[in-house]
Amino acid sequence: MSDTRYVHGYSAREAERLRAQANSLSALLHDEVRYARGRRVLEVACGTGAQTVFLAANSPQAEIVSVDVSPASLEQARKKVAAAGYRNVEFRIADLFDLPFDDAGFDDLFVCFVLEHLAEPERALAAVRRVLRPGGSVTVIEGDHGSWYCHPQSEAATRTVQCLIEVQARLGGDSLIGRRIYPLLAAAGFADVNVIPRMVYVDDSRPDLVEGFSKNTFIAMVEGVREPAIALGLMTASDWDKGIAEMHRAAEPGGTFCYTFFRGTATKP
Amino acid sequence: MSDTRYVHGYSAREAERLRAQANSLSALLHDEVRYARGRRVLEVACGTGAQTVFLAANSPQAEIVSVDVSPASLEQARKKVAAAGYRNVEFRIADLFDLPFDDAGFDDLFVCFVLEHLAEPERALAAVRRVLRPGGSVTVIEGDHGSWYCHPQSEAATRTVQCLIEVQARLGGDSLIGRRIYPLLAAAGFADVNVIPRMVYVDDSRPDLVEGFSKNTFIAMVEGVREPAIALGLMTASDWDKGIAEMHRAAEPGGTFCYTFFRGTATKP
Repeated sequence: MSDTRYVHGYSAREAERLRAQANSLSALLHDEVRYARGRRVLEVACGTGAQTVFLAANSPQAEIVSVDVSPASLEQARKKVAAAGYRNVEFRIADLFDLPFDDAGFDDLFVCFVLEHLAEPERALAAVRRVLRPGGSVTVIEGDHGSWYCHPQSEAATRTVQCLIEVQARLGGDSLIGRRIYPLLAAAGFADVNVIPRMVYVDDSRPDLVEGFSKNTFIAMVEGVREPAIALGLMTASDWDKGIAEMHRAAEPGGTFCYTFFRGTATKP
Repeated sequence: MSDTRYVHGYSAREAERLRAQANSLSALLHDEVRYARGRRVLEVACGTGAQTVFLAANSPQAEIVSVDVSPASLEQARKKVAAAGYRNVEFRIADLFDLPFDDAGFDDLFVCFVLEHLAEPERALAAVRRVLRPGGSVTVIEGDHGSWYCHPQSEAATRTVQCLIEVQARLGGDSLIGRRIYPLLAAAGFADVNVIPRMVYVDDSRPDLVEGFSKNTFIAMVEGVREPAIALGLMTASDWDKGIAEMHRAAEPGGTFCYTFFRGTATKP
């Protein structure tokens, strides 16, 4: 993973976007993710800790180990968790394809917004499966950018989202991965695979999601690939700007906005 | 509505498809639709009664009046409800734009898979609103064909679904209407509008939905527009057949299939 470029970049605005996403969506993504006292949980590729704070908050008596390949991200994650007052997380620099842990040493694995960035998600699941004990659980959470649509429907906006999908594909990732979680977990040899969609639906009656999801998470994420999309010739600058404007229109009163995350759980036989 | 052509046709296979859909999806669509003893409920455009049997079953002590503009459909609905043993439904031939009822005579309106077929859904909601008493409720359920996607992702399959959307648009309908329920109800002057998505997610672990939804409901519905789609030049026959084959592949083991219905509720101020 160390040589994988990261579609979302590492800018300050991106850090802000990840924070907005984590706050407005935490209930939707984490509502059933709870680990009991003494469970040894590995969070794989925690990044800047956007999800780590929710893991720590929701499972206060579990022993969480969060790893990431980027020292800078890990340092941010460490500060975030410390600032929130949680002491049940240990941080380690590690590449998920070469984890510095014994076989079968963890009770649970938590893998959130990771597989989408990898050219070989199957190999990643096999690699992390090694450190899970038989009978232990894995939870995988991913989005699926092909699940997005809005009202008023807009072809230009749809094309900007296609650019994000295409740019991520050229970086070796797959942003249509949410729909693939079931077959990926099954192919990696996990049992009891269960995937549930967690759909975000936004209209005027949900102003927190208009801000926290539609504008500050999704549109911000699409806007993040403006430069490569135009440089690669995927869209012209004026078509791009039209698409973004129409996407913003769907976040105004009278518009609606839809996106689906998927959460898969399974056990190691 | 009397001169509106119906995208799904009136064939025996279509009747079978509607039956499969109603059975596999009834829980998802109807789970919170319950009317108390003595409530006078109007089901608007009940068609062949696919939903009427669930209404009657779930609200056994309500007084349900189901109307449709087609005498043949209404006769099928009447037989279906009688065969199921329910006696709490009265059937009337009526055009929803010209309902033969006094103002404010109903406590509740139920409008399911109706607006998608109408060129003027706003006018339809205004027309049925007349017969609802102040404080009464309306429930609107619609699908949204633009919400469909599958794994393995397939451009050809997506194009066949686009054909269905396009054919329905040429008949004056809008099969992307699910995402519009909130603004439509708000614009029609209803209050307390609340829309929730009801997403159907299908993988190997849900063989009932593979059969009942993916194959016998959704793919069957798309296949129903093969002739007009090809005749209109929207796709060639061979591209069409490729799209359908790839859609079937997503309903095989290892594939996944996603579609979202929307249910809106509101009250008349």
